[in-house]
Amino acid sequence: MSKDYREMWSGLDMNIEAHDGLLGVLTDAYKNIYLSQKNRPEGMKYFDFVISEVHGLRIEEIVEAKKQGRKIIGTFCVYVPEELILAVDGVCIGLCAGADVGSDEAEKYIPRNTCALIKAFMGFKLAGLCPYIQTTDLIVGETTCDGKKKAYELFDEMTNGKMYVMEIPNKKGEDGKSLWKNEVKRFAEKLESLSGKRITLEKLKEASKVVNDKRKALQRLSLLRANDPSPISGLDALLINQVAFYDDPLRFTAKLNELCDELDQRVKSGAGAASKGSPRILVSGSPMAIPNWKLHAITEGSGATIVGEESCVGERNFRSLLDDDFSSLDNAMQKIADRYMTINCACFTPNNERLSDIEDLAGRLKADGIIHYAIQFCTPYMMEAYKVKKVADDIKVPFLRIETDYSMEDMGQLKTRVEAFLEMIGKGVRV
Amino acid sequence: MSKDYREMWSGLDMNIEAHDGLLGVLTDAYKNIYLSQKNRPEGMKYFDFVISEVHGLRIEEIVEAKKQGRKIIGTFCVYVPEELILAVDGVCIGLCAGADVGSDEAEKYIPRNTCALIKAFMGFKLAGLCPYIQTTDLIVGETTCDGKKKAYELFDEMTNGKMYVMEIPNKKGEDGKSLWKNEVKRFAEKLESLSGKRITLEKLKEASKVVNDKRKALQRLSLLRANDPSPISGLDALLINQVAFYDDPLRFTAKLNELCDELDQRVKSGAGAASKGSPRILVSGSPMAIPNWKLHAITEGSGATIVGEESCVGERNFRSLLDDDFSSLDNAMQKIADRYMTINCACFTPNNERLSDIEDLAGRLKADGIIHYAIQFCTPYMMEAYKVKKVADDIKVPFLRIETDYSMEDMGQLKTRVEAFLEMIGKGVRV
Repeated sequence: MSKDYREMWSGLDMNIEAHDGLLGVLTDAYKNIYLSQKNRPEGMKYFDFVISEVHGLRIEEIVEAKKQGRKIIGTFCVYVPEELILAVDGVCIGLCAGADVGSDEAEKYIPRNTCALIKAFMGFKLAGLCPYIQTTDLIVGETTCDGKKKAYELFDEMTNGKMYVMEIPNKKGEDGKSLWKNEVKRFAEKLESLSGKRITLEKLKEASKVVNDKRKALQRLSLLRANDPSPISGLDALLINQVAFYDDPLRFTAKLNELCDELDQRVKSGAGAASKGSPRILVSGSPMAIPNWKLHAITEGSGATIVGEESCVGERNFRSLLDDDFSSLDNAMQKIADRYMTINCACFTPNNERLSDIEDLAGRLKADGIIHYAIQFCTPYMMEAYKVKKVADDIKVPFLRIETDYSMEDMGQLKTRVEAFLEMIGKGVRV
Repeated sequence: MSKDYREMWSGLDMNIEAHDGLLGVLTDAYKNIYLSQKNRPEGMKYFDFVISEVHGLRIEEIVEAKKQGRKIIGTFCVYVPEELILAVDGVCIGLCAGADVGSDEAEKYIPRNTCALIKAFMGFKLAGLCPYIQTTDLIVGETTCDGKKKAYELFDEMTNGKMYVMEIPNKKGEDGKSLWKNEVKRFAEKLESLSGKRITLEKLKEASKVVNDKRKALQRLSLLRANDPSPISGLDALLINQVAFYDDPLRFTAKLNELCDELDQRVKSGAGAASKGSPRILVSGSPMAIPNWKLHAITEGSGATIVGEESCVGERNFRSLLDDDFSSLDNAMQKIADRYMTINCACFTPNNERLSDIEDLAGRLKADGIIHYAIQFCTPYMMEAYKVKKVADDIKVPFLRIETDYSMEDMGQLKTRVEAFLEMIGKGVRV
């Protein structure tokens, strides 16, 4: 970190000592997992810097934005329309949910059998370890799974009433879509009253351009990974997808496009993160929040390349652009609602569109194998894994199902399973 | 059982040998848990008979009804409007979901970390052990939790497309209520097309009377349990609430009212299932499907009386009557939708009305303690337990949280915990 931020963290009512410990662990993990990689693109230096300052410089920026009257909106889900937040000049931030901290505290409120992501966001808050949560003016939840839906009720008490929960329907029928459109409108009104700013058509178009440009840059990165060898490792691509939720969107997009320019050159010269012909893996399932790099580290550490994430921290976040040719504010709300409804989350029943997405992605990325990743106790994705396996069987791509949490206890066992899977792929075995 | 039903079961494509084994186990369990109780009301003889014929005579009746062209509608949830089913002369049946059978088979499709109720309904089907499922023309699911919502997608394949899933919203806002009303209307249309019968105002009023009468009889039973001593055991009352989902509704209501007449007499004479002054327990949480009698058996076996179930197999099923003063069919649909929306399931966020219900019930039933019961991995109820405990603390009623499945492995541990809880109550300790 470039300087001592302890005074800022103290001002945010954080637990400085525990936070020092957490940063120490994260710095070591990053060094071991990320900085030890070979043949990294030069452009990753920016993202390395962002990570090194993820609780420092970025928080300083946010605190500064807050001083200037901008509202800080925390989120946990790609269903929260970022355009609306930017249209009231707000800062949209994905909150800490990727590390096993404060679980003991969280388990005083929620069951032990709760997914690691939920335990983590509660644990980060209870342990005073997430500077982002501390800066928020509003925290936006959604009804995407039982665990989050019910945990937000308790989280509201822990954050002194900062929670605002958007209702996502259970089906993508006409009634559900209409309910969702009204939720989008209500969220826009909430942001207006919170910020004291009007959402105009002009502001919304501007905001939409910012978010669409970010999505386009992420799409560009995704397409580049279809090359063999992929010009970038899965670990680095995952990191970029994670940083997309934290960084200033304009700067992020510019830096990612610079990186993609470099990756274009690497493709031309045949340079890659791994050697040509190494097994290409598509990961699909639950989201991986910073610093959850576990599966990628194991898989790429075993000689494969992860070429895509069919995940909310991945394709689901950027796959669809927003059609921002708005004719009126109501038309804008409709188009925003429609765009977000194209995200194929396992919270919907049925969710067959996700199966098509996986089939398309596996084809486009020339995947040699699909690893279905579920956070333990993430019922929607664990249940859907059965259907994903059927798709993999249909398209004759080997399939491995992983269910894990944020602890390091099962690293050895996972490594053994992933290595066996890669060996099977290497032998050309098709299940 | 009064006769040999094997030919009928064979005709229903069941696994006769495994089913014989299951019936043997159930008969023994019933003898040990139910028939060993002292001071049972005479009127329980009818319900003992129903249970002894639960896979026999009742199935014969259903098979006969089917021959006469009536449609058999299976359900798993008190949100499915029974009035509509009766209005097309259908038979409404709660499906088998209360025993640990076929779990190994079920776990080939769904995660091990799935609640016992879901594993059970899938297991019963896969193992060929539920004659009710076999007779159904339609199985109605609902989106009340992640587990059921996603498991129904697979269950649809296992039942050759018999599933019909009603969408329950996540919030009880205006949009959610309007979505639900439309779901009720669509379900009515589905039943009409399935049965070839029109739902008329007259048929709906008739059907409503049948279901309301059943609810009134169950309410009467609930009120009788407020006496000290309760004239009936919690085990027997639970059984009646379970049988309410299987039996012919007219007969059930008549027999339950007869029993309540007898219970009135017992109250006058001071006769009870246990002695006056024994600890009175309110159970609250996940539903207990037949033959899930575990918690009641342990608690009453330890000398307490369970005086109420704030559960879908209990109060939530009968607490609200349907206002059937319908002015039109659309008005009827509105009133049906409104009535079912008063069921305070943990699937809603927030669900504060359930907390009020618990407070009211604990007062009315003069509960000395509240046991919160959650089926393991039942996230909505497990999460809500935290708020229920706060209510119990506020009203100064001791509180115990139980999380268990259908296996018998933790019986000893549960017994120890329940006994310690009752001892604390006996000493007048208020938490």
